[in-house]
Amino acid sequence: MGPVEDAELTSGSGFWATAAVGDVPAVVLTDGPHGVRKQAGGASLLTGSAATCFPPAVATASTWDRSLLRRMGAALGAEARALGVGVLLGPGINLKRSPLNGRNFEYFSEDPLLTGALAAEWVLGVQGEGVGASLKHFAVNSQETDRMTISADVDERTLRELYLSGFERVVRTARPWTVMCSYNRVNGVHAANNRWLLTDVLRGEWGFDGLVVSDWGAVVDRVASVAAGLDLTMPGPDPRGDADLVRAVADGDLDPELLATSAQRVRALAERAAPADPGETFDADAHHALAREIAGRAIVLLKNEGGLLPLATAGQSIAVIGEFARTPRYQGGGSSLITPTRLDDALAAITAATSAPVTFAPGYGEGASVAEAARVAAAADVAVLFVGTDQETEGADRTDIDLPATHLELLEHVVAANPRTVVVLSNGGVLRTPWDTTVPALVEAWLLGQAGGSATADVLFGTVNPSGRLAETIPHRLADHPSYLDFPGEAGHVRYGEGIHVGYRGFDAREQDVAYPFGFGLSYTTFTYGQATATADENGIDVRVPITNTGDRAGHEVVQLYLSLPTSRVRRAPRELKAFEVVELARAQTVEVLLHVPRRDLAFWDPTLTQWAIEGGDYHVAVGASSRDLRTTTTVPVPGDGSRIPLTADSTIAQWFAHPEGARLLEEALAPLTSNGGPLSGMPLRELAGGMPLSRLTRLLPTTALDQAIATAVSRLTP
Amino acid sequence: MGPVEDAELTSGSGFWATAAVGDVPAVVLTDGPHGVRKQAGGASLLTGSAATCFPPAVATASTWDRSLLRRMGAALGAEARALGVGVLLGPGINLKRSPLNGRNFEYFSEDPLLTGALAAEWVLGVQGEGVGASLKHFAVNSQETDRMTISADVDERTLRELYLSGFERVVRTARPWTVMCSYNRVNGVHAANNRWLLTDVLRGEWGFDGLVVSDWGAVVDRVASVAAGLDLTMPGPDPRGDADLVRAVADGDLDPELLATSAQRVRALAERAAPADPGETFDADAHHALAREIAGRAIVLLKNEGGLLPLATAGQSIAVIGEFARTPRYQGGGSSLITPTRLDDALAAITAATSAPVTFAPGYGEGASVAEAARVAAAADVAVLFVGTDQETEGADRTDIDLPATHLELLEHVVAANPRTVVVLSNGGVLRTPWDTTVPALVEAWLLGQAGGSATADVLFGTVNPSGRLAETIPHRLADHPSYLDFPGEAGHVRYGEGIHVGYRGFDAREQDVAYPFGFGLSYTTFTYGQATATADENGIDVRVPITNTGDRAGHEVVQLYLSLPTSRVRRAPRELKAFEVVELARAQTVEVLLHVPRRDLAFWDPTLTQWAIEGGDYHVAVGASSRDLRTTTTVPVPGDGSRIPLTADSTIAQWFAHPEGARLLEEALAPLTSNGGPLSGMPLRELAGGMPLSRLTRLLPTTALDQAIATAVSRLTP
Repeated sequence: MGPVEDAELTSGSGFWATAAVGDVPAVVLTDGPHGVRKQAGGASLLTGSAATCFPPAVATASTWDRSLLRRMGAALGAEARALGVGVLLGPGINLKRSPLNGRNFEYFSEDPLLTGALAAEWVLGVQGEGVGASLKHFAVNSQETDRMTISADVDERTLRELYLSGFERVVRTARPWTVMCSYNRVNGVHAANNRWLLTDVLRGEWGFDGLVVSDWGAVVDRVASVAAGLDLTMPGPDPRGDADLVRAVADGDLDPELLATSAQRVRALAERAAPADPGETFDADAHHALAREIAGRAIVLLKNEGGLLPLATAGQSIAVIGEFARTPRYQGGGSSLITPTRLDDALAAITAATSAPVTFAPGYGEGASVAEAARVAAAADVAVLFVGTDQETEGADRTDIDLPATHLELLEHVVAANPRTVVVLSNGGVLRTPWDTTVPALVEAWLLGQAGGSATADVLFGTVNPSGRLAETIPHRLADHPSYLDFPGEAGHVRYGEGIHVGYRGFDAREQDVAYPFGFGLSYTTFTYGQATATADENGIDVRVPITNTGDRAGHEVVQLYLSLPTSRVRRAPRELKAFEVVELARAQTVEVLLHVPRRDLAFWDPTLTQWAIEGGDYHVAVGASSRDLRTTTTVPVPGDGSRIPLTADSTIAQWFAHPEGARLLEEALAPLTSNGGPLSGMPLRELAGGMPLSRLTRLLPTTALDQAIATAVSRLTP
Repeated sequence: MGPVEDAELTSGSGFWATAAVGDVPAVVLTDGPHGVRKQAGGASLLTGSAATCFPPAVATASTWDRSLLRRMGAALGAEARALGVGVLLGPGINLKRSPLNGRNFEYFSEDPLLTGALAAEWVLGVQGEGVGASLKHFAVNSQETDRMTISADVDERTLRELYLSGFERVVRTARPWTVMCSYNRVNGVHAANNRWLLTDVLRGEWGFDGLVVSDWGAVVDRVASVAAGLDLTMPGPDPRGDADLVRAVADGDLDPELLATSAQRVRALAERAAPADPGETFDADAHHALAREIAGRAIVLLKNEGGLLPLATAGQSIAVIGEFARTPRYQGGGSSLITPTRLDDALAAITAATSAPVTFAPGYGEGASVAEAARVAAAADVAVLFVGTDQETEGADRTDIDLPATHLELLEHVVAANPRTVVVLSNGGVLRTPWDTTVPALVEAWLLGQAGGSATADVLFGTVNPSGRLAETIPHRLADHPSYLDFPGEAGHVRYGEGIHVGYRGFDAREQDVAYPFGFGLSYTTFTYGQATATADENGIDVRVPITNTGDRAGHEVVQLYLSLPTSRVRRAPRELKAFEVVELARAQTVEVLLHVPRRDLAFWDPTLTQWAIEGGDYHVAVGASSRDLRTTTTVPVPGDGSRIPLTADSTIAQWFAHPEGARLLEEALAPLTSNGGPLSGMPLRELAGGMPLSRLTRLLPTTALDQAIATAVSRLTP
C-alpha cells in the first residue's frame, strides 16, 4: 500500500470507528471507562445502547482492591465483545491534582501508585477478553478548563514521579493495546504533536508497542502528529488531513516510514480486535451483581459515633431524606455517560432491607420542602440523609467543593430535627465537610454506578462491612489545597507550582490539618497492627506486619506502606505510598501481611543527572491504616545505585568543599591565594562565594597556577 | 579610541575601581547599602574605613517613611564624597520572597510598592550629593543558595508585577546612575547575559540611561554580556575578557557600536562622579544622631499588654538580660559590613535613661548562665530580654525562622522568673514567635545600625513613640509561607510556584492566620479612622480619610491603602498595597490624609496581551492600620483602557459564546450543524467542547459553509 491508503487508515471513518481499507476491517472504539457506551442505532453521538454502568473510577479507586478491578475489567471486556466494540476507551488515569477537576469522577487518585496499580488490573481484565484498552489521557490532562489549549507547565521531576508515573506503570505491567493522547499542551507542546512524550518516553523508554490514538479532536496538525508518533486521528473522516499527509510525504517533509509505521499499527490493531461471534451476549444480572459488590466495597465510612451504624433491620424506624435516595446520582456527565441495564435506588433497597417503617421526603428538588423533611426526620428513630453534588461533567471544572446551598440548608434542618442522622454523600469530586461535627455518622458514597442504591443499603445495614479508603484527601478548605494558587491557570498556561507536592504529599509537607486524610476509612470491626519488620535485597524491600481483627465481625483491612528518605539529596515528600494490600479477616483472625516494594519503585528522578536514581540510606518505613494513622514503623538500610553528581570546573566552591577528595584538592589549589598575603587572604570564601562555580573563580583571579591546579583536580575526579 | 581602550574601560582596574584610561579617570565603587565600606589602606578587601553604620534596609523599610530614606541617602552621599567614593553600591531591593533568604536584612519588603517607593528616596538622597547609586541586584536574586548558578523560573506576569516592579519604580522616578545585574539566571539566562532584561526592558521600556555594572564576579562571558547591554564588568582587571572583546569585534562576532556605547557609558559615569574637594569630611555626630532617629522609627512594637511599655524612668528597677544588650547585633555579614564610627549598646542607654537600679545578666554566650539570668530577672520590677538571631549573612540562606535554642531556653526561664518581661528581638530576617502568648510585651528591633542601642532605649522609655510597621509578614510557621514548597529549589532551578502570591498576597489568598500581618505595628497612642471617600480621574484614584489621634501622646500613624478588583479577568491578590502615608499627629489632632494612586499603578500585566492593561470596574478601596486591620472601605468606579482579548479563529467556542457579538455570529454559523438532523444535533456543544478552538471544529467538521461563516465572523470582529 502507499501513502494514500496509509493516510486513510490513520484517520477514522466516522466518530466511533477506524476506516476499512482494502482487507483491513474497521475497528469500533468507544467510551469507556466504567461501561460500554456503544452508540445506539439512530441515537445521538453520545447515546449508547444499554450496558452495565459500573462504578466510576472515583469509587473503584476507593476499594484499593486489585482483584475487583480485574473482575470489573473482564466484565467490561465481555460487554464490549457482545456489543461489537474492539477498543474500550479507558482507563482514565490522570492524577487528581485539584479537587475542582470536573472529571475527577473518572479518575482514580491523587497518588500515582494507587492509580497505576488499579488501572493496570482494569486493562488486564478488559484485554483478557480480547478487547483493547486505551490508556488516557496522555498526559497531564488534570483539568477541564481550557483543556484543548492550556499548557500544563511541569518540571521534569514532577512529570516523571507524579503525572507520568501511573502511565508508565500500566504500560509496563499491563501492555495496553492503545494509549490516547490528551488535548492539552505539555510544557508548551500539544500532546498530539509531542514527540518526546509519544515516542521518546512512551515507546523508547517504556517499550510501548501498541497504537497511539488521539483524543477526539486533539489533533491540530496531522503531519506533525504522525511525525511525533501519533498513529490514529479520531474522529474522522479527515480528508484534508489525509491529503496533507500525502503531500508531506511527496514533498519530503515527512518520512514515509513514519506514516507507514502508523498505518501498520492500525492494521495490527484491526487484527487483534477480531470481532466476536455473532450473537454473543453478556450476563446482565451477573454484571449488575458485580457492580453492586464493587460499589459496596467502594463506600468509605468517614464517621460513626456511638455505633449509629449499622442500622437495625427491625424495630428502628427510618426516615430517608433527599431526592438522591429515590433518584440516584450514580455517574457523571460527558462521554462516559452510560444507558444502564437497571438502576437501583437506595430508598427501595432500604425499604426492602428492614421490617420497620421507612418514610421518605425529597428535601430538595422540585416542590420539595425542607420543613416537611425535618418533620419526617423528627418522627423516625433514625434519619438517613442523602445529599451531594448536583452535577459533575467532562468539559467543565467545579468552582468550589461545597455542598449545594439547598442541600446544606436541608442538612441543618434535618440534623436539628433528629440528631441521630446518618449523612450519605453522592459526589464525583470531594466535598468539604465543615458541618461534620454536627452529625454522628457520615458515609462517602461517591458515584456508585447502577447498583449503588442497593450497595448503599448493604453498608448501612451491615450486610457489607465497609472497607473503602480515601484515594484523595478531603481538605478542610479548598484554599488549603496544594494546587489552590495555581488552578486552573490563565492565559493559556497552568503552572504546576506545587511540584511533586500533589495531594497528601503537599498537605504533609506543610503539616496541615485535613478533614479526612488520604487512605482513611472506618470499618464496623477493628484491626490491630503488630511490629513491622523490613528487609532489603536486590529485588527491593519486603515488609511483614501481623494484622489482627479485634472486633466482632469479619472485615477487609487496607494495609498501607509509606516510605521516606530523610537524607535524600533532593526534596522529598514526607511520606509516599509504596505498597498496599487488602486482606479479609474473620473475627479474631491474624495474618502476616507481606508488602513488597520493587527496587525500581525506590527510584526518584534526579533532575541534575536527568535519570532515575536510587539513593542509598536508611529508608523510613511506616505501615498503617491511613497516611496519618501509621501504626508501626521501622527503618531499613538500602544500598544506592552509585549515582552521584559529578564534580566539574562548573561545580561550585561549596560543592567542591562538600566532596571529601574535592575539598582536599581544592584547598591545595587555593593555598597560594588564601594564604597570608595572597589576594584572598582573610576572605570568608566559603561563606561569600560558596555558590561560585570554580570556572568563575578562575575568571576573577586568572592565574596559571590556579588554572592548572583546578584542571588537575577535575581530571583526577572525572572518570 | 578603539576596541582595545573600550575593552579596558569596560572592566575594572581592581576590586573597587574602574580603569583610568587616557584622560578618563577611575571611579571608585563600593558597598553599600547602609554605610560606606571604603576599603581601608592595607586592610582586606572587605574591611572598610570608619563610616556611619545606618540601619539596614530591614529596619528602614519598617519606618515606611520616605523622608527618612531621603535624609539617610543624603548622609550616605556626603560620606561617600568625603571618602572618595563615586558610586555607592545600593540600594538592594530584591523582593523578600522567603523569610529564609540570608540577605533579607539588606532588602526592604515583600511588597514591591513599599520597596520601590522607599528605595527611590534613598537614590534621590545619595545622588543629590553628586554620588551615584547602583540599584541591585537586577533581577530576581531573592535567595543566596546557589546564587551564581540558580535559574529563577518565573512567569512574566509575576516578574512584571512583583520582582521587576520595584526596579521599574526606582528607575522611572529616581533615575539611578547605575544598575547592578545579579548573579543568578532568570528563566534560564544569566542576568549578566540577559538582553531582554538589561536592554529591552531596562532601557527600552523603562528609559534607563545610566550604566549597567555586573555584580562582582557575575559575568560568565564578556562578549555575551556586552551584547546583552552590560557595560562594566567588575571586579578587574580582566585581561582575558578584554582580549575576547577585541577579538569578537575583529571577527565580526560583536557589533563594535555595542562595545563603544558601553565604554562611552563608563566615560559618562566618570564625568558625573567628579571627585570631591580634597579634605571634604562628614559630620559623624550628626549622622549618628540621624542613624538613631531612623532606628527609633524602625522599631515595631508587636505586643504591649497592660501597658507594660513604656518603662518608667524612675522607681522601677530593670533587669536587662541577654548579651545582645551589651554586645549589639546591629548589621549582617558580607559585603555590606561596616566599620562603625561609634557603637551604642542598649544596656548603657537603658542605664543612662533611668534613675532606678539596672542589673544585667548575659544569659547566653560564653560562660553565661540561664539560672543567673533568671535570678537577676526575678529580682527586678521588670525584665527586658534581648534575644535574636546569631548571624545572618550574604552568601547563605537560613534553614529555619526559629530563635536559637539557647535563646529560647533563656526566654522560657526569664519569663517564668518574671512575668513582667519585655522581649526585644534583634534579627535581620523574621523570626516566628510561638512563645509570644507568654510575654506581655514584644519589641521587634531588627538590626538597627550603630545607634540601635540608644534607639531601643528611646522606644522602651517612650522618648520615641513607636511607629514602625512590618514590611513583611511574620507567619506562625515557616511551612505556612507561600514560598515554602519551592525554596530554594534544586538542580539549578527554583520555581516561583506561588506566582504573584508573594508574602501577604499569598497568606491573604489562602485566608491563612499569621502571627503578625504585613503593615502591623502598635503605638503608645491610638488613632481612629473616619470614613474614606474615593474619586477617580485620568490621573488615578484619590482617597481621603480623616485620622484622629485619640490617645494621650503625639505619634506617627502609617496609613495604608489596599486595592482589589474582584471582577478582574485575571486572578488577583485579595489586597494590594497601592498607597501609604505617614502622618504625625499631636494629642487629639485630626488630619485628612490624602492617598493618591497614580493611574499607572492600577495596571496589571496582561499575560495574554503581553502588555500592561487597566481594567475598568468598581475597585474596592480599603484603608487601615495594617493589611488585616482595615478601618474603612469604599468602592470607586474606574474606566478601563479598552484593552480586551481579541476573538480569532483560534479562540475557543466558550470564548466566542462569552462575547456578545461573537455569540450571535457563531450561532448563525453553527445553525446548519446544530439544528435537527445536523451532525451536532443534540450535542451539549458548549459543555463538552467549550474549550475547543473554532479552528479545531472546522477540522472536525470540514464544511465549506462553516469555514465561510467563521471567516466572516472573524473578519467582522477583528479590527
